[in-house]
Amino acid sequence: MFIQLNKKFKSKKLNVCVIGLGYVGLPLAEAFSKYFQVVGFDISKKRVEQLRKNYDSNQIKNKNKKFQKNLFFTKNLKDISHCDIFIITVPTPVNKKNQPDLFFLNHAINNLIKVNLKNKFIILESTIFPTLSNEYIKKIENKTNLRMNEDFCFGYSPERINPGDNIKTLKTIDKIVSCPSVRGLKFLNIFYKKIVNKIHTCSVLAEAEMAKIIENTQRDINISFINEISIVCDKLNLNFPSVLKLASTKWNFLKFTPGLVGGHCISVDPYYLTYILKKNKYNPRVILSGRQVNENYPKYIYKIIKKRITKKIKNVLIAGLAYKENCNDIRNSKSINLGKIFKNRGYNVNFFDPHVQLKKINNIPVVKSLKNNFYDVIVICVRHSIFFDSSNKYKFCKIAKSNSLIYDVKRGMFC
Amino acid sequence: MFIQLNKKFKSKKLNVCVIGLGYVGLPLAEAFSKYFQVVGFDISKKRVEQLRKNYDSNQIKNKNKKFQKNLFFTKNLKDISHCDIFIITVPTPVNKKNQPDLFFLNHAINNLIKVNLKNKFIILESTIFPTLSNEYIKKIENKTNLRMNEDFCFGYSPERINPGDNIKTLKTIDKIVSCPSVRGLKFLNIFYKKIVNKIHTCSVLAEAEMAKIIENTQRDINISFINEISIVCDKLNLNFPSVLKLASTKWNFLKFTPGLVGGHCISVDPYYLTYILKKNKYNPRVILSGRQVNENYPKYIYKIIKKRITKKIKNVLIAGLAYKENCNDIRNSKSINLGKIFKNRGYNVNFFDPHVQLKKINNIPVVKSLKNNFYDVIVICVRHSIFFDSSNKYKFCKIAKSNSLIYDVKRGMFC
Repeated sequence: MFIQLNKKFKSKKLNVCVIGLGYVGLPLAEAFSKYFQVVGFDISKKRVEQLRKNYDSNQIKNKNKKFQKNLFFTKNLKDISHCDIFIITVPTPVNKKNQPDLFFLNHAINNLIKVNLKNKFIILESTIFPTLSNEYIKKIENKTNLRMNEDFCFGYSPERINPGDNIKTLKTIDKIVSCPSVRGLKFLNIFYKKIVNKIHTCSVLAEAEMAKIIENTQRDINISFINEISIVCDKLNLNFPSVLKLASTKWNFLKFTPGLVGGHCISVDPYYLTYILKKNKYNPRVILSGRQVNENYPKYIYKIIKKRITKKIKNVLIAGLAYKENCNDIRNSKSINLGKIFKNRGYNVNFFDPHVQLKKINNIPVVKSLKNNFYDVIVICVRHSIFFDSSNKYKFCKIAKSNSLIYDVKRGMFC
Repeated sequence: MFIQLNKKFKSKKLNVCVIGLGYVGLPLAEAFSKYFQVVGFDISKKRVEQLRKNYDSNQIKNKNKKFQKNLFFTKNLKDISHCDIFIITVPTPVNKKNQPDLFFLNHAINNLIKVNLKNKFIILESTIFPTLSNEYIKKIENKTNLRMNEDFCFGYSPERINPGDNIKTLKTIDKIVSCPSVRGLKFLNIFYKKIVNKIHTCSVLAEAEMAKIIENTQRDINISFINEISIVCDKLNLNFPSVLKLASTKWNFLKFTPGLVGGHCISVDPYYLTYILKKNKYNPRVILSGRQVNENYPKYIYKIIKKRITKKIKNVLIAGLAYKENCNDIRNSKSINLGKIFKNRGYNVNFFDPHVQLKKINNIPVVKSLKNNFYDVIVICVRHSIFFDSSNKYKFCKIAKSNSLIYDVKRGMFC
């Protein structure tokens, strides 16, 4: 199969399919479409229709740029059956019990099993727990009677897309590719080299799966540590920003800031790892303690604000719903949790995030403009650039009442 | 009191006393002795006698250099009563229950209370838990009837000495000074400016106390995370060094290595913080989970080595007892714990560390030379430069048997 694939690669006749057209899949499809015919596949009719009209609701694509002509979007399986490479970039979220929800991934694999996979290369980019790629290989072998490395190939290449970052782009972020087949790995290397500057190869799928998960888990733990320190400073009546600033004067202090850890990666990946570890009868203490502190951080923020409230007040503004600055991704947003906490305690809550197009979330209105002299409490969860005026001050200060409580989550302080 | 102190400072007639002449105190006494008369005070007769003979058993001082003439060593209180500044750098270890053992610090403060503290400035450099400086101020006020800021002054300036580091030296490491008195803080600033390039001031003692503790605790947690990942990789049969190498190709992955966390700072400071937090009815999850993983890491190392032992073997070498490379500090050494674990299970254990002068530790011999073809297991705990030959390979490989198990703790792998 590799002779044929390499031939097609060299003659640029390779047909590439990207399954899942979100934050990861769309930029990937765009990048490969500069070199090959690419079919972008998504199960959402709405998403496919919008992309066909050159509209990306995720706001990742440049608004004025049109997609390459050899990038075609579809939701029909028959449009992808001719493809040689299938890159899976579907979401891998957790369910309500914080266990891996593999619905989208299973759906994608089951769809591929329906396609004739003879001589095809499947590349998984979604974050998964270690050993899962091998399970899918076995599944495909069982259902199709095709043999891995002979009839079809399977590789894992974890995505490292950093939405909203114009410096660390798909091209400049080092990429890991892994495949147990020597020829498969060689192919992945030349294939991704088209769109990424630097590739690192690995012959063990589970090692690449693990590497991806620990990158995000390390970040989760470091934020949880800073969050815990902010809680601890409050307990001891110490000024947290001042403590953090002092510690930061040590050459090797890691300058993390406190925050509401949400999004589709950092707040999810540690649970994927935990899931497979618990199945192997291991309880990862450090990893889980980090999760626990970060999961409970909205409650802590509610508590410290509540402590400052001296009279009966009503109106609360939660500003910044996205999981990080200058993006519109509200998956697992802990700002939304914070809003719910206030709402459940009888406050009148407004959400505010100009990046987010929704009108209501959990029955809380997402307001488009802010009322003057109205909010008793303003919580700024994320530092979107549009929140600052030209002199780098929060615009919220202007619309606040003289006695409004304004809490800046990322600095861990009232301002 | 500050008019007098500033006058003495300007005319270089300030008398400085450093209490505790260990890894922190001796370099500090040396540095100040270039500008002022300095008395180095230590309760150990042996230490004082050795220093008087220009011998530093900690091997921090350059062997061939003699101390300045205006640096005098003593163990007698009467020799320090004329001093204007008292810098306390005594150890602050934990007891067997991992609770703060303030014996040395209490002893130093009690000694100072015996001296007339009128117009004197006490500076504490030892690592302590937040709020403790204030307790000592109250104690001094109660016992001496002197008033803080009027009759005497108390400052906290956490040490950041990095033994064995020739680049990050006392002079080039940023220093925090804290004092609730404005004039006191001003004095600390000009005083330390003599020996340190950059000073950061803080008017709240407990904030500086906290800053110091979180610096080391952050390091403890990051190492514990990597240690946990090494355990997890073993559980899932993944090659840990390979996983770590792959993850390190991400631009923001923090390149910590696994290890036996010992020494007088990183393995101790989190317990100081935990102590005061538990007193305030708070259980720091992340901090304690890190400690737990690091405390148990010697047991894990024993376990993975044991798994590899297939026949009856006897001789175990534990190489590298100091808590970090190229130093001889064996306080809280976890390599020693590891040796005890093997010994308790009937193995014949030898310790080896050319930096350490002792003949026996916990009834385990510290050998001076290694036997050829003798050791069945060699555990290299620390990467001392002297462990490597000219081609940067471990010297141990040469004396090992062909079937010796050699485990490199810092790389988390058998070699």
